[in-house]
Amino acid sequence: MRQAMAAAEVGDDVLDHDPTMRALEERVADLLGVPAALWVPSGSMGNLIALMLHLRRGDRFLAPRGAHVLGAELGTAAWLAGGMPEALDWDAGPGRVSAAAVRAAIGPGAAGPYYALRTTLLCVENTHNAAGGSVVPPAEHAEVVAAARAGGLRVHLDGARLWNAAVALGRPPAALAEGVDTVQVCLSKGLGAPVGSVVAGSAEFVVEARRVRKMLGGGVRQGGVLAAAGLVALDRIDELAEDHANAAALAAGLAELGWDVRAPQTNIVLAAVPDLAGTLAELDRLGVAAGPMAGQVRFVTHRDVTKADIAEVLRRLATAESRAETRQTG
Amino acid sequence: MRQAMAAAEVGDDVLDHDPTMRALEERVADLLGVPAALWVPSGSMGNLIALMLHLRRGDRFLAPRGAHVLGAELGTAAWLAGGMPEALDWDAGPGRVSAAAVRAAIGPGAAGPYYALRTTLLCVENTHNAAGGSVVPPAEHAEVVAAARAGGLRVHLDGARLWNAAVALGRPPAALAEGVDTVQVCLSKGLGAPVGSVVAGSAEFVVEARRVRKMLGGGVRQGGVLAAAGLVALDRIDELAEDHANAAALAAGLAELGWDVRAPQTNIVLAAVPDLAGTLAELDRLGVAAGPMAGQVRFVTHRDVTKADIAEVLRRLATAESRAETRQTG
Amino acid sequence: MRQAMAAAEVGDDVLDHDPTMRALEERVADLLGVPAALWVPSGSMGNLIALMLHLRRGDRFLAPRGAHVLGAELGTAAWLAGGMPEALDWDAGPGRVSAAAVRAAIGPGAAGPYYALRTTLLCVENTHNAAGGSVVPPAEHAEVVAAARAGGLRVHLDGARLWNAAVALGRPPAALAEGVDTVQVCLSKGLGAPVGSVVAGSAEFVVEARRVRKMLGGGVRQGGVLAAAGLVALDRIDELAEDHANAAALAAGLAELGWDVRAPQTNIVLAAVPDLAGTLAELDRLGVAAGPMAGQVRFVTHRDVTKADIAEVLRRLATAESRAETRQTG
Amino acid sequence: MRQAMAAAEVGDDVLDHDPTMRALEERVADLLGVPAALWVPSGSMGNLIALMLHLRRGDRFLAPRGAHVLGAELGTAAWLAGGMPEALDWDAGPGRVSAAAVRAAIGPGAAGPYYALRTTLLCVENTHNAAGGSVVPPAEHAEVVAAARAGGLRVHLDGARLWNAAVALGRPPAALAEGVDTVQVCLSKGLGAPVGSVVAGSAEFVVEARRVRKMLGGGVRQGGVLAAAGLVALDRIDELAEDHANAAALAAGLAELGWDVRAPQTNIVLAAVPDLAGTLAELDRLGVAAGPMAGQVRFVTHRDVTKADIAEVLRRLATAESRAETRQTG
Repeated sequence: MRQAMAAAEVGDDVLDHDPTMRALEERVADLLGVPAALWVPSGSMGNLIALMLHLRRGDRFLAPRGAHVLGAELGTAAWLAGGMPEALDWDAGPGRVSAAAVRAAIGPGAAGPYYALRTTLLCVENTHNAAGGSVVPPAEHAEVVAAARAGGLRVHLDGARLWNAAVALGRPPAALAEGVDTVQVCLSKGLGAPVGSVVAGSAEFVVEARRVRKMLGGGVRQGGVLAAAGLVALDRIDELAEDHANAAALAAGLAELGWDVRAPQTNIVLAAVPDLAGTLAELDRLGVAAGPMAGQVRFVTHRDVTKADIAEVLRRLATAESRAETRQTG
Repeated sequence: MRQAMAAAEVGDDVLDHDPTMRALEERVADLLGVPAALWVPSGSMGNLIALMLHLRRGDRFLAPRGAHVLGAELGTAAWLAGGMPEALDWDAGPGRVSAAAVRAAIGPGAAGPYYALRTTLLCVENTHNAAGGSVVPPAEHAEVVAAARAGGLRVHLDGARLWNAAVALGRPPAALAEGVDTVQVCLSKGLGAPVGSVVAGSAEFVVEARRVRKMLGGGVRQGGVLAAAGLVALDRIDELAEDHANAAALAAGLAELGWDVRAPQTNIVLAAVPDLAGTLAELDRLGVAAGPMAGQVRFVTHRDVTKADIAEVLRRLATAESRAETRQTG
Repeated sequence: MRQAMAAAEVGDDVLDHDPTMRALEERVADLLGVPAALWVPSGSMGNLIALMLHLRRGDRFLAPRGAHVLGAELGTAAWLAGGMPEALDWDAGPGRVSAAAVRAAIGPGAAGPYYALRTTLLCVENTHNAAGGSVVPPAEHAEVVAAARAGGLRVHLDGARLWNAAVALGRPPAALAEGVDTVQVCLSKGLGAPVGSVVAGSAEFVVEARRVRKMLGGGVRQGGVLAAAGLVALDRIDELAEDHANAAALAAGLAELGWDVRAPQTNIVLAAVPDLAGTLAELDRLGVAAGPMAGQVRFVTHRDVTKADIAEVLRRLATAESRAETRQTG
Repeated sequence: MRQAMAAAEVGDDVLDHDPTMRALEERVADLLGVPAALWVPSGSMGNLIALMLHLRRGDRFLAPRGAHVLGAELGTAAWLAGGMPEALDWDAGPGRVSAAAVRAAIGPGAAGPYYALRTTLLCVENTHNAAGGSVVPPAEHAEVVAAARAGGLRVHLDGARLWNAAVALGRPPAALAEGVDTVQVCLSKGLGAPVGSVVAGSAEFVVEARRVRKMLGGGVRQGGVLAAAGLVALDRIDELAEDHANAAALAAGLAELGWDVRAPQTNIVLAAVPDLAGTLAELDRLGVAAGPMAGQVRFVTHRDVTKADIAEVLRRLATAESRAETRQTG
């Protein structure tokens, strides 16, 4: 990837002259089945730009509880994009909301009295990070989108981990973005580009998005070096299957050791533990990377984590536990 | 009241020279047991000013589900005051949240990592309008406030109907505002002043609040005429007991007619009906004022509604029902 | 006026049911020659609502230097309405800008590159307060508006003192609002209503403006009492001629006493003095109401200032000066 | 530079673990003589973060006319940072304002009445881009900063081209940042890094700035590759002298050809032409890169422009002119 970056052909992207950037954006638009796309420095900025263009002051938007736009973007969806959020419970599985729940939450939509909030946007997230990388299958996605559209809503898909969902389902990414107005995908995270995401939608959307990107300070000059890395990253989508296999192996091993884990659908393993802070400290001591997520321990597999690494993690945990038992029973 | 308005001594209140305004603000501050107060044109503006001064971008605030600041102020708590809202379920009764729920929702408060929302404010509402004018008693209020303070939060009390809560509990309003940083009370609604609310807190808060009021266009010139009405309104607090008695009579009568109503604590009667729109249309046809609230029919008693009016409403409803039965069985 | 307030027929204006309010709004719309109008608590809020609806983030707006929206509204035109201001020099007289200056300032308007500000709005002010109540005549107004429209701009007229301009010119107010998209007029100030302004424009504008008014906390319940005062105020427009005559007499008297004053066009007299703070303190000591404005002393005549008051002011000033001379020469 | 990027040691910079990023930020802080620094994706974001932290709603800030924060950042200084801008005329030379002008513009600063804007910030720009890369010398800088501080203002320095000013003056960059609260410098532009700027100030400022960067979507994951490029760029500061020499040669050559140019102080040459659009089109036809700036033609020299390139540009222009003369006289 770094060789590709070193060889990238670049131009001034603020002036829209960077050929590698153009190539990246076109390829992502193709993958997602939408007309146009725009590189942004981060997934947060991609989501923010989409919400700034979808929402007006006085609007209300829906998102599954724990969505990144609700909890992990410092409230910009509210104070900068201007929407009042409504978190929807996961009535259709972890991280998932049903079409019926969306219908119920819309209320009169944009048709209420002048002094009331107008519900105008649904944000979905696939895979849903805080729910442990859970996947929304295409049929369910289609129903939810249809319910939103029937209520007059627009739909934004936070697809920071959409590639994982696509690989887990064995479907092209475009099948999971069908019917949405806008979608954001990350080139970093699982795909391993150092920096960058893409936000995509209609050609008109991208024209406006480019302007908002400049407002937020996300326009860069010779972004081609980063676009080159993004293009390499896109070649690796299929390799995410290895991350998923490693996550499954980790979860299985943890279960054998008595941990309370759910079988992962993608590359995130969540484990419920009685003492979150204590467990994280112990993992850190053992050299095992993990973090907190929604009150649980979260392990993430990615391209720098090998099958052997998983085995080593499980070995260390087993050893530590047997020592702890020895201490307790000794 | 209008005689008082006609006789009011006035000055330019933008320049802080209106003696009737000063008198009103001092009297409300005394009633609420806080150092200072500021007249504002509406309860929405009073809440908004408080939230604008309490919240910074990146902050998160808590409020009971259905709170006025969440649903009835067009999202200004989010996009203008800058807070990401978190609605708390009513685990302590209609419109009420427990101290434990507050503690659980605070999380790390302002002590989380730099890239996370910081929970810094609790908004409470007494009586809680959308819960049917439900009352939070002083002991519960004190526990909730203590939980918030222990977690480093500030507390704002939306007391648009605080006078009703005080009368229902037989306690002075100050007892229900104890420990909060700021409180907003309405002079219109039950008390019957044509226009105006008051937002109150520390002297420093009011200095800043006056500036924010000017920003929002809420500074008025000869507001003394409205302050005069407010002073008359404050003399009527005890008379709210009649509204409560009328609401109780209405609820009892409705129950006798087979309606699904909860006994009201103050001046709001909520009735669950199978066909909300149909029932509202029928009430309108019968000349009975009512509106929708949280999926139910909402009746409000106030100083222009007499005991005889309640009897008349019940008579009309009874007549209409017997006719409907006749039609159905005829 | 207070009798009219006491007798006003009222309703809940948030719910759009206040008949006196409706009557006031229709009458103002007629006076201004626009389809619709909305009462607001202050001129600042009226201007703010108009700018919030005209401007988008990334827009730039033009206004004559010293305009109220630039200096006297705490920057809401910028941070809340979202526009980057450009102050235009007074090339056509005090408080006045020429059509040529507007044309030159527009630049490419909304047609510039995506990464540039787009000039989309011109704000004018008639009379121009900070320029001493200076009047823009209809022909000049028409030229300026035409220049703005030719450049694709909208036009908002801050007519807080439009009545004064109309009386000074002997023209109907509508002649001074011709061609603008929106206009704000005050019922307080010269006309003497205690509280209130009106913002007016197309029917679609007023629909949106009503919503924004609610957002800002400017929706009031029984506003009819204030509307009644507003209706009385509108009957008094012609009486403003007396204020103008009084201002002219004051300016003439001051000139005789050796003050550096410009002959006023309406009801504001500006005097340039070597020591502003000292002069204001001396005026205060003499019981003469005056304030600072753009580095000068500002006197305002209004319906509570009589011809005799002017004579008395001049008498006190003359006496004070002769004493001061005596002290200096004694 | 790309080799350095390929070899960079990286970590997750959102989690503050990127060693190359840390090295870059420390080195810039040292160069600027301030305690701490933060990488950002663009100069616009660096300026925006500083202004967001310096300004509150109701504040007014000063900047020399044509400053980047006024005209080239889509108004974010106003609508997102919350300040009302005041453009200061260039009374001390192109792009330069005197200490006296700053003093006069401050007015009462933060000590005015509650309903007035408070002037709290001065933004300076060195070199001043729109003034043709003009340089503010250290003594003048010190006087201006002292005037601002005496009036209670903070000072932000937009140093996107500070390296050019330092080289032109033969002074260390820190000498030009003395006394300011915050400063922004670019690693792209003249220094040639593909992406990135740095905003610097106190340690407390950087703590808050990191949070705001995350809000705006400017936090990146493996930014180390970009930091590596930035470190290489910083080694090149002295090489900017060549760009200045080339700009001087270009200006001299243009003057010989009869163009109306000012001798450049750094790497920007501005030429006043009668027909801007026509001249730009002709330059484009000749393969000479130039753009519009403040109504003039702007040429920029940078590390990819050689002495030979300058000679070639002048040759083409001379040839084109002699042909045009031939056409006219033929």
